[in-house]
Amino acid sequence: MYKAPVEEIAFTLKHVAGMGRAMEDGRLGDLSGDVVDAILTEAGRFAGDVMEPLAEIGDRQGTKLVDGKVVLPPGWEQLYRDWIAGGWNGLTAPEEFGGQGLPHMLNIATLEMWNSASMAFGLAPTLTMGAVEALLAHGSEDLKRKYLAKLVSGEWAGTMNLTEPHAGSDVGALRTRAERRDDGTYRLFGQKIFITWGDHEAAENIVHFVLARLPDAPAGTRGISLFLVPKFLVGDDGSLGARNDYFAHSLEHKLGIHGSPTCTMIYGDGKYGSEKGAVGWLIGEENKGLACMFTMMNNARLAVGIQGVAIAEAATQKAIAYAKERTQGRAPGTTTTGMSPIIEHPDIARMLLTMKALTQGSRAICYACAEAIDMSHRDEGRASYWQGRAALLTPIAKSFSTDAGVDVASLGIQVHGGMGFIEETGAARLLRDARIAPIYEGTNGIQAIDLVTRKLTIAGGDHLRGFTHELREIADAVEKSNLDGFGETAARLYAAITDLEAASEWLLARQAEGRIAEALSGATPYQRLFGLVLTACYLAKGGLADVADGEGEKRIALCRFAAENMLAETTALTDRIVAGASSLEAARIALA
Amino acid sequence: MYKAPVEEIAFTLKHVAGMGRAMEDGRLGDLSGDVVDAILTEAGRFAGDVMEPLAEIGDRQGTKLVDGKVVLPPGWEQLYRDWIAGGWNGLTAPEEFGGQGLPHMLNIATLEMWNSASMAFGLAPTLTMGAVEALLAHGSEDLKRKYLAKLVSGEWAGTMNLTEPHAGSDVGALRTRAERRDDGTYRLFGQKIFITWGDHEAAENIVHFVLARLPDAPAGTRGISLFLVPKFLVGDDGSLGARNDYFAHSLEHKLGIHGSPTCTMIYGDGKYGSEKGAVGWLIGEENKGLACMFTMMNNARLAVGIQGVAIAEAATQKAIAYAKERTQGRAPGTTTTGMSPIIEHPDIARMLLTMKALTQGSRAICYACAEAIDMSHRDEGRASYWQGRAALLTPIAKSFSTDAGVDVASLGIQVHGGMGFIEETGAARLLRDARIAPIYEGTNGIQAIDLVTRKLTIAGGDHLRGFTHELREIADAVEKSNLDGFGETAARLYAAITDLEAASEWLLARQAEGRIAEALSGATPYQRLFGLVLTACYLAKGGLADVADGEGEKRIALCRFAAENMLAETTALTDRIVAGASSLEAARIALA
Repeated sequence: MYKAPVEEIAFTLKHVAGMGRAMEDGRLGDLSGDVVDAILTEAGRFAGDVMEPLAEIGDRQGTKLVDGKVVLPPGWEQLYRDWIAGGWNGLTAPEEFGGQGLPHMLNIATLEMWNSASMAFGLAPTLTMGAVEALLAHGSEDLKRKYLAKLVSGEWAGTMNLTEPHAGSDVGALRTRAERRDDGTYRLFGQKIFITWGDHEAAENIVHFVLARLPDAPAGTRGISLFLVPKFLVGDDGSLGARNDYFAHSLEHKLGIHGSPTCTMIYGDGKYGSEKGAVGWLIGEENKGLACMFTMMNNARLAVGIQGVAIAEAATQKAIAYAKERTQGRAPGTTTTGMSPIIEHPDIARMLLTMKALTQGSRAICYACAEAIDMSHRDEGRASYWQGRAALLTPIAKSFSTDAGVDVASLGIQVHGGMGFIEETGAARLLRDARIAPIYEGTNGIQAIDLVTRKLTIAGGDHLRGFTHELREIADAVEKSNLDGFGETAARLYAAITDLEAASEWLLARQAEGRIAEALSGATPYQRLFGLVLTACYLAKGGLADVADGEGEKRIALCRFAAENMLAETTALTDRIVAGASSLEAARIALA
Repeated sequence: MYKAPVEEIAFTLKHVAGMGRAMEDGRLGDLSGDVVDAILTEAGRFAGDVMEPLAEIGDRQGTKLVDGKVVLPPGWEQLYRDWIAGGWNGLTAPEEFGGQGLPHMLNIATLEMWNSASMAFGLAPTLTMGAVEALLAHGSEDLKRKYLAKLVSGEWAGTMNLTEPHAGSDVGALRTRAERRDDGTYRLFGQKIFITWGDHEAAENIVHFVLARLPDAPAGTRGISLFLVPKFLVGDDGSLGARNDYFAHSLEHKLGIHGSPTCTMIYGDGKYGSEKGAVGWLIGEENKGLACMFTMMNNARLAVGIQGVAIAEAATQKAIAYAKERTQGRAPGTTTTGMSPIIEHPDIARMLLTMKALTQGSRAICYACAEAIDMSHRDEGRASYWQGRAALLTPIAKSFSTDAGVDVASLGIQVHGGMGFIEETGAARLLRDARIAPIYEGTNGIQAIDLVTRKLTIAGGDHLRGFTHELREIADAVEKSNLDGFGETAARLYAAITDLEAASEWLLARQAEGRIAEALSGATPYQRLFGLVLTACYLAKGGLADVADGEGEKRIALCRFAAENMLAETTALTDRIVAGASSLEAARIALA
């Protein structure tokens, strides 16, 4: 059913995110537009033809814990092996470790396709890629030598172990214990929950990145260290040795992503090995583990954002196809006899256009974030600009896209009517899968706090101000284009950007005054406001790209729809930010 | 876990909906406030103590088709029998048929509780009550004599059979065939899908109300007749006879409401009986079946609306309880040591207050709709006023409340963080159950079309104008109250009502000009706009009710939150209605 929108993805990469310009400027090595198209086409084929047909059985059968082993859904072990055989896991990894050294933009674009085909499956490589990043950035040469090539190929899989029963968003509260040993290794003891792809038999080894606390560590986040804990110990020659002392204790029974094993992990219980304690190796420095973990988490946040885009894309495709086929009633203005395809009813068209605008808008935001990450490494003179842009866009990419994923999947069910509620239709699974994305890798509320308190404030707000200036240039270009198809888009964009600026300055001022609670009250509305403005601006940027692909008129029309039907919300959001805090505070008594 | 909010429900009935005034005016017989409280208390006890504990097993085990019989979840047959033994099924039915003759307001209030406890279970009586309504209004004396008392008691259950594979929203497209027989009965042949509680063993007999088409019937909706088709034929003495010729062919595998058997029904296949064809008796007149069915459907629409309220209430309770217990991080301004309960974080408080405002607002809308239905029978001098009000409020009660149910359930998951995605927490089930309510009994898009084309236009728009005048009086009262707690509520209400008036007049004008497509483009935004205005106005009405129950200050604070944080959206919605249609139309090319 899912057909990867290869052309739209390529267009967005090249003309909305700056891949085209970066190639022209020679920042992407010898990567050419044709190579990009070829990679995307091949990924799209694998996602649509090989992966997606296994998504439903993954959902229906889920994962099982049998005799201590995690059993993936039928066909999924082979799927994983076929997928890594395609080289997809190492797309962006350095060539010296067997990767292909391609830009992260391409990785995010292909991640979108894997997640559209099966979000439960798409999670596996996401975690391994994060492990590669952390090891590259913070691992010792010895650990890199032993682990990197296998993680890059995907023969070994990686995981992140942060959460504990009492430490979710508040990772500083974790209690897993790490003890030093004389040989420089550590022994870990404790329980971790919600560990995505925490155990399985698809990969030969699983390499866990585990946050734990040394006995003499300071309290809170400054006393957390990061350890590499392999499932099987690795000899100097890379051979697999003894089973490490941890195990997957149980699997969660979840609303969605049933094909992804979500494990409770017990470390150091003495189940394996002669000495109690899971053997771990320090990554980075003692008590500096959180910074290392953030290397994984920042990219993981964008990777979760793209899951929202992926679900939105799959849901939109499915709904449009259904709405063209299903006939009910007669749409206004119909002249033919018989029932109309429901896509002709204005209310259905509104839902589908909203879905499409949110999908393309959130895709553009995620790709622009990936561009900023790439350019922060490849555009040396402007590294700090791009770092600021990546930092600013990451929470928006994560939260706006995952909210869009849920909203679009829910609209997709609605378009299907009663059939949408029937599991076999597949629309319901998309909502069930999508619903985790606003929660994990930092809830969207945490993202909003991050956006307001750490990203908006970059360079005292000047990075944000520079960004809104760039957005105004897009509005200027729409105005100057004189294209009728844009309708009132330019005026709508100016108004929305003005709202964004006003809300931003208000939030900066409150923080400068130390009125943090007021700023935080507006954090989630601000995040949505920012996402809506970017959606409309990026749709406009796409509409302005003069590409002879026959889609220009459609892009402009969709942009106009977003500007004239969705953008007025920015004024309400700004009002909520600026005027809503005191009533929120006063209404706390209603929750008592 | 669920604790019926008996006091809040009683308050809303008496002081927001007009039950208090109606009792004073003697329109509710000898019903007193104390009796209302006693009934609500007892219903709350049954819902919380008896029904809710069986909800989870109903979800987990669902229903099964075993040897042609529909098997309910463990404990559910007994639950049904205990429930009807309590007399709950006949609360509003006439006393001459064994009912209690109580107002529909009370029925809706108790339906809320059943649906909070288990929406899958709550559906069963909803359908039977609809059957009672239809039989009372349109059945022959003979059919009433044979069927009514048993349906009123609930010993026999009722169903509605409308949908067919090609006829969902477009009921006029149905193909089920009815043939006349010389004895005045009919024989039915055809397939119906999505039949809620279509078969089970909890009731002794099941009485289906089936829409079918006579051989010589006109095409479309004017050729539809309504038939009563019992599972077991009923003798003149009321005894059960032969099995009728239909059967439940299969059960749907659904996203939610797993405890409710959703059946595909085959009529007249020759499985039972000597002569092919399910025996049916005409309800009302031939070819006038749709009007009879609307008697069932209008009340069913409100009953579905209350399901949205019910889910929202259950989700809000669960989320508030969790947010008070779960600690993470430190909220701004916290002076104590250790982690803060997450309810203290502004973003969590915002979610919970939004949930609470939507719950109480949609409850008030549904109760006000029930009041209008009651008064249309009991306030003789103003029957047409109340009929108009009931007609106008029904689509809003159905759609706004069910959208609120989905939104609030989704927010409830978010408040729970990772735990929200784990099925055992129970928050996910509420979303899964809630998701059908915007679809069945006429999708919310159909409700919006009904609102704009048939309800807004009542008396050329004058009923609507009278209503907004009443709403302005609430805003006036807020302003005159001079209560500081209301903050900017009065000004916000005036602005929102002005938006509603502007949108209404625009939609009326477009329809007068025959520009139907434009009016329909704004139908869904208009429906939400109306619901938001009513939410804030009814919260204000509650806040103004000077009741010494210690909750007044809380109600005013929640009203202010809604006014200052949620009501600004009305301007965006009005803009979408007035300015959005042409861009929607132009953007259709983006769906090609």
